Amino acid sequence: MEEREFDALVMIAASEHDADLYYVTRFLAPDALAFFDFGGHRALLASDLEFGRAAHQARVDEVLPLATYEARAKERGIERPSLIDAVAIVLEERKARRLLVPASFGLGYAEGLRERGFEVRHRKDPFFAERGVKSQEEVGHIAEAQRATESAMALAIDLIREADVRDGGLTRQGRPLTSEEVRRRVAIHLLERDYVTPETIVAGGDQGCDPHHRGSGPLRAGESIILDIFPRSIRTRYWGDLTRTVVKGRAPDRLKRMYDAVLAAQAKALALVRDGADGRAIHEDVCQVFVAQGFETGSANGKPQGFIHGTGHGVGLEIHEPPRISKAGVPLRAGQVVTIEPGLYYPGVGAIRIEDLVVVTPAGLLNLTSFPKVLEV
Amino acid sequence: MEEREFDALVMIAASEHDADLYYVTRFLAPDALAFFDFGGHRALLASDLEFGRAAHQARVDEVLPLATYEARAKERGIERPSLIDAVAIVLEERKARRLLVPASFGLGYAEGLRERGFEVRHRKDPFFAERGVKSQEEVGHIAEAQRATESAMALAIDLIREADVRDGGLTRQGRPLTSEEVRRRVAIHLLERDYVTPETIVAGGDQGCDPHHRGSGPLRAGESIILDIFPRSIRTRYWGDLTRTVVKGRAPDRLKRMYDAVLAAQAKALALVRDGADGRAIHEDVCQVFVAQGFETGSANGKPQGFIHGTGHGVGLEIHEPPRISKAGVPLRAGQVVTIEPGLYYPGVGAIRIEDLVVVTPAGLLNLTSFPKVLEV
Repeated sequence: MEEREFDALVMIAASEHDADLYYVTRFLAPDALAFFDFGGHRALLASDLEFGRAAHQARVDEVLPLATYEARAKERGIERPSLIDAVAIVLEERKARRLLVPASFGLGYAEGLRERGFEVRHRKDPFFAERGVKSQEEVGHIAEAQRATESAMALAIDLIREADVRDGGLTRQGRPLTSEEVRRRVAIHLLERDYVTPETIVAGGDQGCDPHHRGSGPLRAGESIILDIFPRSIRTRYWGDLTRTVVKGRAPDRLKRMYDAVLAAQAKALALVRDGADGRAIHEDVCQVFVAQGFETGSANGKPQGFIHGTGHGVGLEIHEPPRISKAGVPLRAGQVVTIEPGLYYPGVGAIRIEDLVVVTPAGLLNLTSFPKVLEV
Repeated sequence: MEEREFDALVMIAASEHDADLYYVTRFLAPDALAFFDFGGHRALLASDLEFGRAAHQARVDEVLPLATYEARAKERGIERPSLIDAVAIVLEERKARRLLVPASFGLGYAEGLRERGFEVRHRKDPFFAERGVKSQEEVGHIAEAQRATESAMALAIDLIREADVRDGGLTRQGRPLTSEEVRRRVAIHLLERDYVTPETIVAGGDQGCDPHHRGSGPLRAGESIILDIFPRSIRTRYWGDLTRTVVKGRAPDRLKRMYDAVLAAQAKALALVRDGADGRAIHEDVCQVFVAQGFETGSANGKPQGFIHGTGHGVGLEIHEPPRISKAGVPLRAGQVVTIEPGLYYPGVGAIRIEDLVVVTPAGLLNLTSFPKVLEV
């Protein structure tokens, strides 16, 4: 069976955790739902618990009550019907035998359907290619999220700028200013604007050299502090994403040179982004900027250092989604929203990352980010 | 291949979204990692981006650098190695051909491994049966989360109790008191204590009849208001879960009778919980309490009403996890942490749900919840 030959698209997932399912139904639920697309006729199988909400909210043609299909399964002698038993009856009644599912479709569900006589094939990601290209409405949601992100970044940097320095450590109202305190203030600021921030990064010094280290403990002057803020709108579910790196007081020369190299690498990438540009080529050009400026990527004491991640990633209903701008990159398309976030990481020296969020356009890009880039504060 | 015959357990997931992977590694990452258990020797395959953190934090015997395995794949002529190419080399080097994976394992990954000559079977959920039985440390984390949840519930109910009533609507400082405002205040209260609350429910009147409706708009006196608060600790990642239903002012008689029936049903269930008790039998007894008191479950105008969900569910690293106490219930085991949360939902009348969080013990239960149950406030 090739992809062009199938009777139904099938997804089984909790839309709170599966952005594709939320994208196609705009219905949010914490437990597994089954979604079907029978050649354009779209149906959602929902439990009693979700049925009422689904009937009102889900953008589908039909909401099927799970209880009805469980009852039919019992009539066939299945004492305790599983979700797959109910799904199988929905499919049989619609004479759908050849199923196309996402790559993330659970193997347990797939085997359950195969045991019941269905052909199950998966489509390689992305399941909905059109999800990568944002509508005007979606770009508006992301731009709105980015404005909230910028206001939180201003708050975080103000906390650092206005801190006192005692024995090299930052203090505020006489107490050490910690990563946790900055993160909490950022989170509350955003929550007041109806955004949630699962994992804000406030990482000083060597902590920043692990790019996903959230950061902990007292912040210090003269060290790099990576601030990476990515909130999701509670209302729209779209994300913003913004990184700045600052130093309280004077930055050591090596950090300044790293900062300038990252700025130059980011400028290079921003200049290359446009409809049709190859993500892998952009990433390779960024790598070359670093090499040309003497910043090597490799390993020291068994630990990766240098430019140790991709140049960017898509942002939308997920904080990390296609396309990647990396060694696994693909051609960019107008309407995609991507980050451009080169960085340098040298344990013992510090970490620099600068990230903007942009919309790919036919002629280049629209930068959704206007937050200033200043190292010393 | 039966489950007893396999060379390696394999998981590929983002531990931020896969509680089993976080449970077994205690390492949090937003993108896909591969985990292996070769007969007790546990390894994690991590990209440069995660390698440093993983080497420090992950509870595994070995952290394997993805870059190394990608390089080996290139030596074999694979120009752009995928994660599965790297995983295949890890497995080949360890002579592991028969793989056991979780039911949630992505079909795309499974087919990729099968194409490369591996046998892939899944274990039915739960993947780690031992995850259901909590250690003393885990119970401590959940109890701590439940105390934070109770303090947030007190705040929410105080907001309702102290509200003024104008034309039947609740007001505070001259403005309507909305579901959104209560939810925001709860979220900020919890965030200040390092808890996140993705989806607090504050649902008045008929909104509460859809049990997962979050609630929106102005709250009113004389109507049921469901408050369902379930925060996750940022520090420990364990959840609390608590529901109370209140009415501002006098409750109509029908709501009072519903409330008493739900209280009686909950008391019945709480009396039955103990090691070895059957979750399905407990749920059926709860259903019988409702029927005996004249509260029927069925459908009205195409919408489910009555007692339309299960009696309870497990809580731990996930807010909904096994065991279910429902028609799909199984025997309970000492050390499991479960909710007991019967409810009644009648559009046009209102909704009542009362939820405690308890630990199953050999002789009965330990209730982690001490928050009072009072309808009228």
